[in-house]
Amino acid sequence: MPSPGHDQGPVRPPYQEALARVIADVIEPGAAETDAQGSFPRKQLDALAEAGILGLTVPAGLGGGGAGLREAAHVVRELGAACGSTAMVVTMHYAATAALTAANAEMAAAGGMAGVLGDIAAGRHLSTLAFSESGSRSHFWAPLGTAALEDEGQGVRLDASKSWVTSAGHADSYVWSSRPLAAEGPMTLWLVPRDAEGLSVAGPFDGLGLRGNASAPMSADGLRVPRTAMIGQDGAGLDLAMAAVLPVFLICTASMSAGLMRRLAEETAAHLQRTQLKHLGQSLARQVQPRAQLARLRIEADRAWSLIEGTLGAVEQGRADAQLLVLEVKAAAGEAAADAADLALRACGGAAFRKESPVERLFRDSRAARVMAPTTDALYDFIGRALCGLPLLGEPA
Amino acid sequence: MPSPGHDQGPVRPPYQEALARVIADVIEPGAAETDAQGSFPRKQLDALAEAGILGLTVPAGLGGGGAGLREAAHVVRELGAACGSTAMVVTMHYAATAALTAANAEMAAAGGMAGVLGDIAAGRHLSTLAFSESGSRSHFWAPLGTAALEDEGQGVRLDASKSWVTSAGHADSYVWSSRPLAAEGPMTLWLVPRDAEGLSVAGPFDGLGLRGNASAPMSADGLRVPRTAMIGQDGAGLDLAMAAVLPVFLICTASMSAGLMRRLAEETAAHLQRTQLKHLGQSLARQVQPRAQLARLRIEADRAWSLIEGTLGAVEQGRADAQLLVLEVKAAAGEAAADAADLALRACGGAAFRKESPVERLFRDSRAARVMAPTTDALYDFIGRALCGLPLLGEPA
Amino acid sequence: MPSPGHDQGPVRPPYQEALARVIADVIEPGAAETDAQGSFPRKQLDALAEAGILGLTVPAGLGGGGAGLREAAHVVRELGAACGSTAMVVTMHYAATAALTAANAEMAAAGGMAGVLGDIAAGRHLSTLAFSESGSRSHFWAPLGTAALEDEGQGVRLDASKSWVTSAGHADSYVWSSRPLAAEGPMTLWLVPRDAEGLSVAGPFDGLGLRGNASAPMSADGLRVPRTAMIGQDGAGLDLAMAAVLPVFLICTASMSAGLMRRLAEETAAHLQRTQLKHLGQSLARQVQPRAQLARLRIEADRAWSLIEGTLGAVEQGRADAQLLVLEVKAAAGEAAADAADLALRACGGAAFRKESPVERLFRDSRAARVMAPTTDALYDFIGRALCGLPLLGEPA
Amino acid sequence: MPSPGHDQGPVRPPYQEALARVIADVIEPGAAETDAQGSFPRKQLDALAEAGILGLTVPAGLGGGGAGLREAAHVVRELGAACGSTAMVVTMHYAATAALTAANAEMAAAGGMAGVLGDIAAGRHLSTLAFSESGSRSHFWAPLGTAALEDEGQGVRLDASKSWVTSAGHADSYVWSSRPLAAEGPMTLWLVPRDAEGLSVAGPFDGLGLRGNASAPMSADGLRVPRTAMIGQDGAGLDLAMAAVLPVFLICTASMSAGLMRRLAEETAAHLQRTQLKHLGQSLARQVQPRAQLARLRIEADRAWSLIEGTLGAVEQGRADAQLLVLEVKAAAGEAAADAADLALRACGGAAFRKESPVERLFRDSRAARVMAPTTDALYDFIGRALCGLPLLGEPA
Repeated sequence: MPSPGHDQGPVRPPYQEALARVIADVIEPGAAETDAQGSFPRKQLDALAEAGILGLTVPAGLGGGGAGLREAAHVVRELGAACGSTAMVVTMHYAATAALTAANAEMAAAGGMAGVLGDIAAGRHLSTLAFSESGSRSHFWAPLGTAALEDEGQGVRLDASKSWVTSAGHADSYVWSSRPLAAEGPMTLWLVPRDAEGLSVAGPFDGLGLRGNASAPMSADGLRVPRTAMIGQDGAGLDLAMAAVLPVFLICTASMSAGLMRRLAEETAAHLQRTQLKHLGQSLARQVQPRAQLARLRIEADRAWSLIEGTLGAVEQGRADAQLLVLEVKAAAGEAAADAADLALRACGGAAFRKESPVERLFRDSRAARVMAPTTDALYDFIGRALCGLPLLGEPA
Repeated sequence: MPSPGHDQGPVRPPYQEALARVIADVIEPGAAETDAQGSFPRKQLDALAEAGILGLTVPAGLGGGGAGLREAAHVVRELGAACGSTAMVVTMHYAATAALTAANAEMAAAGGMAGVLGDIAAGRHLSTLAFSESGSRSHFWAPLGTAALEDEGQGVRLDASKSWVTSAGHADSYVWSSRPLAAEGPMTLWLVPRDAEGLSVAGPFDGLGLRGNASAPMSADGLRVPRTAMIGQDGAGLDLAMAAVLPVFLICTASMSAGLMRRLAEETAAHLQRTQLKHLGQSLARQVQPRAQLARLRIEADRAWSLIEGTLGAVEQGRADAQLLVLEVKAAAGEAAADAADLALRACGGAAFRKESPVERLFRDSRAARVMAPTTDALYDFIGRALCGLPLLGEPA
Repeated sequence: MPSPGHDQGPVRPPYQEALARVIADVIEPGAAETDAQGSFPRKQLDALAEAGILGLTVPAGLGGGGAGLREAAHVVRELGAACGSTAMVVTMHYAATAALTAANAEMAAAGGMAGVLGDIAAGRHLSTLAFSESGSRSHFWAPLGTAALEDEGQGVRLDASKSWVTSAGHADSYVWSSRPLAAEGPMTLWLVPRDAEGLSVAGPFDGLGLRGNASAPMSADGLRVPRTAMIGQDGAGLDLAMAAVLPVFLICTASMSAGLMRRLAEETAAHLQRTQLKHLGQSLARQVQPRAQLARLRIEADRAWSLIEGTLGAVEQGRADAQLLVLEVKAAAGEAAADAADLALRACGGAAFRKESPVERLFRDSRAARVMAPTTDALYDFIGRALCGLPLLGEPA
Repeated sequence: MPSPGHDQGPVRPPYQEALARVIADVIEPGAAETDAQGSFPRKQLDALAEAGILGLTVPAGLGGGGAGLREAAHVVRELGAACGSTAMVVTMHYAATAALTAANAEMAAAGGMAGVLGDIAAGRHLSTLAFSESGSRSHFWAPLGTAALEDEGQGVRLDASKSWVTSAGHADSYVWSSRPLAAEGPMTLWLVPRDAEGLSVAGPFDGLGLRGNASAPMSADGLRVPRTAMIGQDGAGLDLAMAAVLPVFLICTASMSAGLMRRLAEETAAHLQRTQLKHLGQSLARQVQPRAQLARLRIEADRAWSLIEGTLGAVEQGRADAQLLVLEVKAAAGEAAADAADLALRACGGAAFRKESPVERLFRDSRAARVMAPTTDALYDFIGRALCGLPLLGEPA
């Protein structure tokens, strides 16, 4: 019987070797402390940057790894098995990178985003998304924050109360949503540098899980960026977000959950095998109930990853059901992770409750995917609308 | 948005064209009556035989379609979307064919099973399994039925009380398990023809679902077969069953459940779109709750099929996790089908309860996979043992 | 250890003795056939009428049993354990009786409903509700059917397409909802006799479960009733339905589910104890998994009944949380019954699937409560609104 | 609509007034810090002692409150709504008190336990259980720890490795299980004072939830107690534990879960009402999905408490199903609390994840009941055995 990994065949591409090394040397050893302290995994990200993982998805023409969604998903899954906080930060970095890359293609004439993408490719720059706001909450498609021209059209003033920014205060830039400057449409995107005047972080993050991901509120109070900080066209930010950012975010978040589940299955199997009931002279693995719980947990892990692989295939082949599957993966994997974590907690019993294994941390981390926008409930609504031929957003007419 | 099918790309192999025609012309139109009458789908099977579907998995060298597990899974999924009873009969036929094919390879010198396989290839012969017994119930790995040499070693007498034989009284042959003739080991397999003396069917099948699959008890009371009816070696029947039969049975049963779920999603989406709440002037599709139920149902369908595809890939590539995934698919898809059918029943409400759509039939059919041996609970136990390094069967030492 | 009944103490009131006799002698023996034939349980209802059970809730002053909600709940629970169809018919009869009784109190001067209530008390009259319509479906609070004065104000013409009337064609009268004659308000109620001109039943009922309850569509095409057939005030029908009918309907339907679960637990325990695994020389009761399923099933049964008892206490004491609990019981017990029936089907395996015990029938019956208006989803909405201080019906302002 | 409390009628007994005051003044204000620091709620327990709550269940003849199971359940429910850690400590104190009280009755001649019970009655003494061991884990019915006579029969030496003692290092005494001194039987109980030589606590508790309950391992290494420290008869400890301790422990733990759920429902309703979606100009209460989640959560709370009330009634009336219901309550309420906490986390979204309300703490606390011995799975096994007529413990013969 194989070790409970997701065997991908005999050959591993070079980035996976590098990634495995960083995980073994830096990320896995630091995960417990990152969680306990709620500290941003800076050292871990530096190691990933150096190994080329943070530049992996930047086009080769801009100096990056030239990898696609499939590789991004694999990276985040491996990270998710080791340290959810790091996985989350990288997910947001890949999502932001996708926005910049997509915009760069259409903005090439204007110089575009080549500079920042080059920095990302070189491992010198961590980016993230700043979408959700305290006014519209998880409905990220409806920003209330504003953008206004200043300085005779050279500068732009941004004002907003962002509610939930991963890597807040630690990222080098924020892909920032606002209402449009002048155009029709729901949203415009901006590249906001970390040192922009008027930008502030509301305080440290103290959450149930992913405790190192620095998901804090941020506010922009008269924040100034140059006009060229606009990513894509004015008013076209939601289209860009839906087409370029959402697939990366949803698939990577799902992959984080898949990695978490794989780890839960490994930890649970190990616990059942090594823990003795001394009065019976046998291990917990001889008990029918925890064994069945382990089985169900492993099924959750395997079908979550299978759905992600199926989705990657559909996207790569341009299949008609690709968009639908993209909408499904995060909801499916996020809910499965919650169920799986309860199965692990039950199978491992008090030992897991008392933090004698990573299961307790993974249990807390498992609830993050569900509440990140788009939440599970929002995704169910999108999927149901898609299947009924209704528009994804807005009141059905 | 695509129609809610599982899009497999632009090119369809010829057997799929033939299958689609038989489904559209014969199977779909007959499904409601097969269920209502509890009648064996003879006409449907004749059409499948004629279209080459029943011989699809016989090796090409014996005149068959030469297809593998992947094609078998696709066939049964399509059948499962149209008529569960037919899907079940074909599943058992493919499982029996797999036993005969595997044995034929090692028995070639002795003439083997080429005759019956040739008949299957030609669409002249329907086979099935006769494993479970009334004494050991769903524990098919422990037959109590006996085999004894007679007629100076030329003939064999079989006695058994089989509890649950699909296509009972309708199949042309039964792949029959008994305790060994003389060898050590738990089981020997036999090919029992439909007209064997001493073989009888206990009565018609009247069940909750799959009402046309003729799953009746059968008994062998001094049944006589020639010594050459032995499939494989004496005492080696369980190995043959686990290695050759079980993967086909588990993957095809899972595929039946996947087809059922796909159909449930289609029917539910159609119901929500076409049904009006006249006092509100809007369709049910505008209601948040049934839309979310449809979304969850579709996710169940998609991840069940993704897991099957992942399993087929693992088997084809000989991956280390192939056996584990094979053990997972039926449990995963069978339980998902039960959940999905409840979601459909809830979303469609009284209309589905009152048989105004196929949902009511699919709901009843959805509970079959769980109780067919190996049951969901047995599979959870196998999987848990595999993950803990314990033997699949028997008391953990 | 007690037999798995809900022990109510040593003394049984006389109506319970009579009920127990009718169940043992008539209802239990007829349940399988009522289900198989989908035939209305006429003989069963005659026996209940004769035993005083159909008149149990009519006020003593009108010749009835003078019993309240608690007794009605007990009757329906006992019936639900034996025959769901009979339990449903009696539930609707008690709900209709409650409407007539409540209206009679305020209509006393006008003669009121004493006549029909006297007939009900004497066991000569079976009534039912005719609320849901094909236009507004399960939203019974929004009838589209009309009422119009005719014959110089002496007669009333009713037109409607009712979608789901229990005891259709078998009841002696229907408590019928329509839009008001002239008043403001959403609804007026009428007493429609079985032989009213213009009243017709659309055909036999053929459903998943409760197959004997004759839940057919009915239509009124120029149906004529006298002006005095109005139950309560014009336009006040919804208030009457919510205050008098809904508690009876919800509590009795919940009790039907509770009875069904108790029976499922009894049948499952008996199956596990009597069924042998001959190769192991032990009963199914020695298997860990089905035993745990039985435990969970029994917990569902017990907490459903406990919630009903708690609700009855709250109603009887006029507690502030009584309305909330009334809204909860049917949703809680209906969903629990669905879960419990799956546990029973799983624990009993193929035997239950193949109708070797009442579990198969109870399984099908278990899905009825969920889809009857107000459906589980509608009740969740009512409860959520109540807890958030919003109006139960209509768009939150 | 009532505030979402469990209304118990107009009159509150005096102990409830005192309890309400302590909760409002001391426990509720300290709950967040107790959790954040993982500190033992000493101040809270002192206030409860002073208010007579810790002596509430000591017989009046010994100076206590003379209250029974019903009052204990109410106290723990109210505490569970405010601070799970305090509720857990009090649950264990009541369970230990029950052992001492039961033993005192039969030991009266020998002086018995009147001294310590008098101290408990006076609020000078906190007790707890020390049952589970690192060798037999949650199987508390099979202690491996030993007791041996010393000092010519005057003293007893106890050696054990206890794995999970609530109030470890903070209680004034421990009701301690060991193998018998000399008698047959699985267990003997001892009263071990906090300052007993050879007794040590293994370190601070750091767990997922109930972070202030000081559930640490303890070890006895040559611990000495006098012979008179034996509680009840040698070898009769398991009978005492099952008859006197288990009902208190199970019902109080269930009540803790019920209180937790009530609070979750209150917090969720408040969150939905007060939180605005500014872009829509409406509160979250206007969203269908969270409203339905709140409804389901409230149903869980209400049926858990109803089952507890039903169980208390059964115990008080000596009904035949009392033991069965006692075995059910903790499993039912513990699992319901886990489900309810997920519903709350989902309905409240990121705000709850980020500790903006007590929901995050209650979520973590909600997983404790399941893993405390007897665990949910152990209870399912007990219940299943009871329903099948098998012995609760040991291999079914």
